[in-house]
Amino acid sequence: SQPLRIAVLPGDGIGKEVMPEGLKILEKAASQFNLKLSFEHHDWASCDYYAEHGQMMPDDWKARIQDCQALYFGAVGWPDTVPDHVSLWGSLLKFRREFDQYINLRPVRLFDGVPCPLAGRKAGDIDFLVVRENTEGEYTSLGGTMFAGTEREIVIQESVFSRIGTDRVLKYAFEVAKQRARKHLTIATKSNGIAISMPYWDGRAEEMGKNYPEVTTDKQHIDILSARFVLQPDRFDVVVASNLFGDILSDLGPACTGTIGLAPSGNLNPDRLFPSLFEPVHGSAPDIYGKSVANPIAMIWSGAMMLEFLGRGLPQGEQESYLKAHDAIVKAIETVLASGPRTPDLGGDASTQQLGDAIAALI
Amino acid sequence: SQPLRIAVLPGDGIGKEVMPEGLKILEKAASQFNLKLSFEHHDWASCDYYAEHGQMMPDDWKARIQDCQALYFGAVGWPDTVPDHVSLWGSLLKFRREFDQYINLRPVRLFDGVPCPLAGRKAGDIDFLVVRENTEGEYTSLGGTMFAGTEREIVIQESVFSRIGTDRVLKYAFEVAKQRARKHLTIATKSNGIAISMPYWDGRAEEMGKNYPEVTTDKQHIDILSARFVLQPDRFDVVVASNLFGDILSDLGPACTGTIGLAPSGNLNPDRLFPSLFEPVHGSAPDIYGKSVANPIAMIWSGAMMLEFLGRGLPQGEQESYLKAHDAIVKAIETVLASGPRTPDLGGDASTQQLGDAIAALI
Ligand SMILES: CC(C)[C@H](C(=O)O)[C@@H](O)C(=O)O
Ligand SMILES: CC(C)[C@H](C(=O)O)[C@@H](O)C(=O)O
Repeated sequence: SQPLRIAVLPGDGIGKEVMPEGLKILEKAASQFNLKLSFEHHDWASCDYYAEHGQMMPDDWKARIQDCQALYFGAVGWPDTVPDHVSLWGSLLKFRREFDQYINLRPVRLFDGVPCPLAGRKAGDIDFLVVRENTEGEYTSLGGTMFAGTEREIVIQESVFSRIGTDRVLKYAFEVAKQRARKHLTIATKSNGIAISMPYWDGRAEEMGKNYPEVTTDKQHIDILSARFVLQPDRFDVVVASNLFGDILSDLGPACTGTIGLAPSGNLNPDRLFPSLFEPVHGSAPDIYGKSVANPIAMIWSGAMMLEFLGRGLPQGEQESYLKAHDAIVKAIETVLASGPRTPDLGGDASTQQLGDAIAALI
Repeated sequence: SQPLRIAVLPGDGIGKEVMPEGLKILEKAASQFNLKLSFEHHDWASCDYYAEHGQMMPDDWKARIQDCQALYFGAVGWPDTVPDHVSLWGSLLKFRREFDQYINLRPVRLFDGVPCPLAGRKAGDIDFLVVRENTEGEYTSLGGTMFAGTEREIVIQESVFSRIGTDRVLKYAFEVAKQRARKHLTIATKSNGIAISMPYWDGRAEEMGKNYPEVTTDKQHIDILSARFVLQPDRFDVVVASNLFGDILSDLGPACTGTIGLAPSGNLNPDRLFPSLFEPVHGSAPDIYGKSVANPIAMIWSGAMMLEFLGRGLPQGEQESYLKAHDAIVKAIETVLASGPRTPDLGGDASTQQLGDAIAALI
């Protein structure tokens, strides 16, 4: 069969430093497990590109990558030269939307060897998934300003929740929960304050739940839910949330496991009509860029998620090697986290490259 | 001078259990420090009232309390009988808006004797203020549904940021920061995703900052900011946030100090054109109601904040006894937290009343 085509977009800042390590691991895994991957490199979707061209991506960006099976993405953003909302809406958020990557899947796991900021928690205690809506909700450029520049200035910002968008993320989350041991789904809401969209979200969740009698649910307002991530992280199994709430919870969750530097994510189009995108949750981190100290694990783990997702899309007989490669990479990450080497964020003095080498050696 | 008139509204659930303890302390403080307080009791703004009258408050609710100097408020909400958005929009959120309580002030402090969920933090390490916008922003009932009940259903939710509303909360936060030792203000945002209102918020913050050269600032996206509450809580001094973000941060902050059961809040109209409202951050907690196990400290601490706020509104000569009463109550809370008795939430078996008695005895 044809190789799987993967568009490689390092983006900005430490995205450019961790990407080579991610690729190193994917190439090692490909040779070990006999995967057929072909990589296509792009230097756009970056603020460097913007500096030269006045836009984040070439006009024909879609044509260039839409036939790929996946996008392997570093990080985007360089606020000193391009305002964040310009760089993000001009690249990452465009991918999510135009490729209808309506699920943002973010595992939260506490590993051996990673100091946990929460007292008394050990590896295994925290192990849940955040399923975030990824195309609509609170993230919009809809709205505007009235009486601009005067004392009476009023700014309206709109959020948009469609039935299609709401139902499909809820359905995905219920499906995922159903396949897990604990079969529990937490539904983030704020229907007591945000009085139109959130009661709607609650109602759709209740409706969807009727199809999943085997999944237990609880609905929590985002304020107390955030508090419980800190106080009772062991109670969560799968958490489903709107775009904004999912964004918050998928930084907060990883923080509770020690660092957001390890957290991977998959921006999925589960229907496989468009390429899905895999990226670390951490951003471009201008403060540490250029020193080769960035931890590449989130990039590498995102690569493993990509292999798993790609594998599941293949005919039965070809799936297994991809799933095995995923497991081998995650296992190698576990081993390196437990016994080193470590980058400075985890108290060591290994470089980005050394970490990549150490993980590659274990596969 | 006339006594200060305080409307007492216990509300629902544990609001009814902690209120008597709050009043016990205020009465003790009044007699010890010679304060002139007069209490007016109301049983509306509660779901019990709703059950009887089909609305949360009497039609003339405003007339009944608007001449008070403050509202001392327990908690509202009883989702089994009244949906949260109905009970809240029919009472608490109405007070905040119609009495223009545009500041929600929420201290976050780690105390001796309270087990901290964060590893290695001790009393004094965490001590900051959340200044939350309290009347507009994301909390609205504006918007609606199109193609209702069909597959094409679309729900629009609007957020509203006025220049007046934005500037006054920023100004208040800068003023508060200016008076503190560290003089640092963190500005919560999400301008990379929420593309109309949040860039506006950022711009107004930058503008306002020009008037406060002595205050250092940093702007953080709500996702990473939430993560840093867990990872680096000691770095915060004053945090200013929109209504929704302030809501999240002021539950998350207290969670990082061990429990949201202790957190107080002041819903302030700093211009004193309307009564301000003082309430615990915890809600009505249906799950523990009726057992006399609720921790009354948030209610009591909110009472102390009320005395401080009321005091500062009095002529110079009369202020001091109120400020002293505030300090005495906070001191008594510290002592009881450090050496007991403790309610079950903090690992003891004292009742709500016993805790109130213990604090009263120290004043
Ligand atoms: C009950 C709810 C509407 C309220 C809010 O979100 O403001 C509460 O969480 C609070 O923080 O006071
Ligand atoms: C960079 C930003 C727009 C993005 C988001 O908010 O979605 C990021 O925080 C993330 O979580 O992927």
